[in-house]
Amino acid sequence: MASPPIITFSTDFGSSGPYVGAVKGAILQICPQARIVDISHEIASHNILEGAFNLACSYSYFPAGTIHLAVVDPGVGSERRGIVVSTDRYRFVGPDNGLFTLIYRREKVKQVISIESARHCRETVSATFHGRDVFGPAAAWLACGTSLEQLGPEVTDWHSLPLTLLRREAPGRVGGVVLQVDRFGNVITSVHDRELRDLLGRRPELVEFQAGGRRIARRCRTYAEAPRGELVYLKGSSGYYEIAVAERSAGQILGLAVGDPVQVKVR
Amino acid sequence: MASPPIITFSTDFGSSGPYVGAVKGAILQICPQARIVDISHEIASHNILEGAFNLACSYSYFPAGTIHLAVVDPGVGSERRGIVVSTDRYRFVGPDNGLFTLIYRREKVKQVISIESARHCRETVSATFHGRDVFGPAAAWLACGTSLEQLGPEVTDWHSLPLTLLRREAPGRVGGVVLQVDRFGNVITSVHDRELRDLLGRRPELVEFQAGGRRIARRCRTYAEAPRGELVYLKGSSGYYEIAVAERSAGQILGLAVGDPVQVKVR
Amino acid sequence: MASPPIITFSTDFGSSGPYVGAVKGAILQICPQARIVDISHEIASHNILEGAFNLACSYSYFPAGTIHLAVVDPGVGSERRGIVVSTDRYRFVGPDNGLFTLIYRREKVKQVISIESARHCRETVSATFHGRDVFGPAAAWLACGTSLEQLGPEVTDWHSLPLTLLRREAPGRVGGVVLQVDRFGNVITSVHDRELRDLLGRRPELVEFQAGGRRIARRCRTYAEAPRGELVYLKGSSGYYEIAVAERSAGQILGLAVGDPVQVKVR
Repeated sequence: MASPPIITFSTDFGSSGPYVGAVKGAILQICPQARIVDISHEIASHNILEGAFNLACSYSYFPAGTIHLAVVDPGVGSERRGIVVSTDRYRFVGPDNGLFTLIYRREKVKQVISIESARHCRETVSATFHGRDVFGPAAAWLACGTSLEQLGPEVTDWHSLPLTLLRREAPGRVGGVVLQVDRFGNVITSVHDRELRDLLGRRPELVEFQAGGRRIARRCRTYAEAPRGELVYLKGSSGYYEIAVAERSAGQILGLAVGDPVQVKVR
Repeated sequence: MASPPIITFSTDFGSSGPYVGAVKGAILQICPQARIVDISHEIASHNILEGAFNLACSYSYFPAGTIHLAVVDPGVGSERRGIVVSTDRYRFVGPDNGLFTLIYRREKVKQVISIESARHCRETVSATFHGRDVFGPAAAWLACGTSLEQLGPEVTDWHSLPLTLLRREAPGRVGGVVLQVDRFGNVITSVHDRELRDLLGRRPELVEFQAGGRRIARRCRTYAEAPRGELVYLKGSSGYYEIAVAERSAGQILGLAVGDPVQVKVR
Repeated sequence: MASPPIITFSTDFGSSGPYVGAVKGAILQICPQARIVDISHEIASHNILEGAFNLACSYSYFPAGTIHLAVVDPGVGSERRGIVVSTDRYRFVGPDNGLFTLIYRREKVKQVISIESARHCRETVSATFHGRDVFGPAAAWLACGTSLEQLGPEVTDWHSLPLTLLRREAPGRVGGVVLQVDRFGNVITSVHDRELRDLLGRRPELVEFQAGGRRIARRCRTYAEAPRGELVYLKGSSGYYEIAVAERSAGQILGLAVGDPVQVKVR
C-alpha cells in the first residue's frame, strides 16, 4: 500500500494561537489521508529570508513526492500571487514573495503556476488568511491527486528576493549575510562551502571570518572542539558556515541578526 | 479505506516538558491508529477564555467526525467534572469549566455526558494530570468506537463562562473584550462582524473602535493596506474584528491583554 | 492491519529553525510509513538531565513497540557513541551521554548496541548533526524492521549521569535535585514518592521540604487546594514531588533551576 501523501508545513504563525490548527483542519477536510509534518511555526514574523533558509535546510531530506507548504506572508490580501513550484522531486506551495528564492537557486524548476482556481480555494477567501483559505487547500488538492494545471495557469515571472547571498567583493574577499541565529546562539551564514571554494579558489581552512567587528580565525570541525569562550567558525550540517562559541551565544556576543553582513578573507 | 480518526489537541501545557508527550502516549496506547493533530500547547497558563477562543477559531475547519481534545484546567483534581460535548459534526472532550463556552454559543449541542466510567480512565488517576489520565483516554476510546453513553451519564447543567462577549451598552455603542493578542501583536476582539451588524443595525464601515484610551477610526481590508505606524481595524479571518498596526504590535502600543474591554461606536 | 510504527521525538533543537524538520525528513525517507510523535523540542539547550527527565515522564505511556528517539547532544562529533537501548517494551535511540540514565534505573535493559553500520547512516555524516545523519536514520531503520544487530555491535559500558537523584543525608533527612521548572512555575524534584518511603520509612504527610532557603511544610493533593500565595508541596502526576504556589511561579520565588538541591526532612 502506498504511504499517504506528506505535506510539510512551515510558517511564521507562532505556536500559540489558532492559525496553525485552522490550516491543518482545512487541509484534512479536503484530503483526510494527508500526513502533515510540522517543520517550524516559529520563523520570525514576516521574515521571508529566514523562511527561505528554513525551507532550504529541510526540504531535501523528505521523500520524493512530498509537498512543501510554506507561509510567511506580510503581503497577504495585496496583489501578490499564490503559486505552486514544481521540481523533479517536490512541489512547493505558498505566496510568490521570494519565499522560494533558495529553491530556485538549487533546483531545476519544471513548472510554476499561479493559484487561481476558485473552486480549489475555500468558499469564502478571507483577506488576511490565505494560509487557511488558499495555500492549505491547494496543497491538500495536490496531495489528493489534483494536477498543477487544474489549480491555475503557468507563469514564468515568479519573484525572487533581490539578494546576493554570496559575492566576491575583492580578490581574496567574499561577502555574505546572516541567515539565522539558532537557539544555541550559532550564527548561520550564507557562506556555503562549495560556493566559497569556487569564489576563492582555495580551501576554507585558509580563511578567516569577519562579523560584528570581530575577526574569527579559528576553524573547528565540531562544536565540542571549540576552546571555551573563543569565537570559532565551522562548516554546518547543511554546508553553510557558522560562527559559534562554546556554551555561549555567538549571536549575542557579535550583536548579529538575520540579514546582517559577514565577510570571508584569505589569510 | 476509512481514514484513521483525527483527535485535535489544544492545551496550556507549553511545548517544553513531558506533559504533551505523556497524553499522546496515553491516547495511542488505547487507540494506536488515532491521528493526533496539535493545534496549540501555548495557550496562556490557566487562561480558559484564550483556550475557548483558540478552539472557536479552529474546530470548524476539521472534517466531520473529528474529536477535539482541549485541556486548560486550573481546577484539576477539584470537584469540576470532565465532559464530552457532542454536536452534529464533532465531539469535544475536556474539563467542564467553560472551555467550551464558545462552542455552546455556536453549535447545536446534541448531548453532554460527564466522564465517570472508571474503566475508561487510566488505572490510577493522578490528582494533578487529568489530561493524561481521564481526558486523553476518553478521546481515544471515542476515536476507537466507544459510545458517549459508555463513558458516563448525560448531564444538562454544564458550565459556561459568565462572559458577555458583546453587548449593546447604549444606542450606537457596543462593548466587547480582547480575545487574544497574537504573535504579530494584532489585538483580536470579541466583536464579530455578523453580531455587530445585528446590534448596531449598520455597516462596520461607519464605526470606530475605542481601546486602551485610543480611538481607531480607520478601517482596512488587509494588513498590507495599513498606513505605516497608524492604528487600524479590520475584519479578521474568523469574522472577529482586530486592531492592528503595520510592522508593530498594536497590543503593546495599546497595553491590552486578554479580557480587556473594547468598544465600538457609531461615527 | 498493524498500525504503522511510532517514533517519538524529543530534542533540545528548539521549535524554530530547520533542525527538527530535517530529522523528520530523514526518517520518512527511510521509513515513509513511520508516525513521528513530537514530545518536546524545547528541552533547555545541552541540558542532558532535563532531557532524561522529559523522557522518563513520557516514554512509558506509549504502546509497546514504540521507538523513542531523543537527541540532546553537546558532544556531537566528538568520540561519544550513538546507541540503541532495548528494553522489554521499547527501544531508545540517541547519544551515549547519559540521556537514558533514568531509563537504566527503571527498566530492565535487554541489550545496548553501538550504532556503527555506515550503510544505515546518511551517506555523508555531518560532524555537527547526528540527529539527522545517524540517530534519525537508525530509528527509521528499526521502525521498518531492521534488527539491532544489523546496526552495530553490542556494548556493555554505556554511560550514566554520575547523578545521585535521591540519597539519605542523615537520619530523617533526604537530599534530591530539581529536575524541571515547568511553564506554570512548578518545581519538579527528583524526590519520588516510592523511593522517599523506602529511604525515610514513613509517609510523606509527615515531612517538610527545604529549597531555596525556605521551608515548605504544607502538603496538598491538588494545585486547586493550595492557599493563595503559600508555597506547598504535592505528589506530581509521575510520582515526583513538586513545590508549587497558586497562581504564581514557585521556581521564581525560590530562585531554583534544574540541578539545584532540595531536601526533605522528617517533621
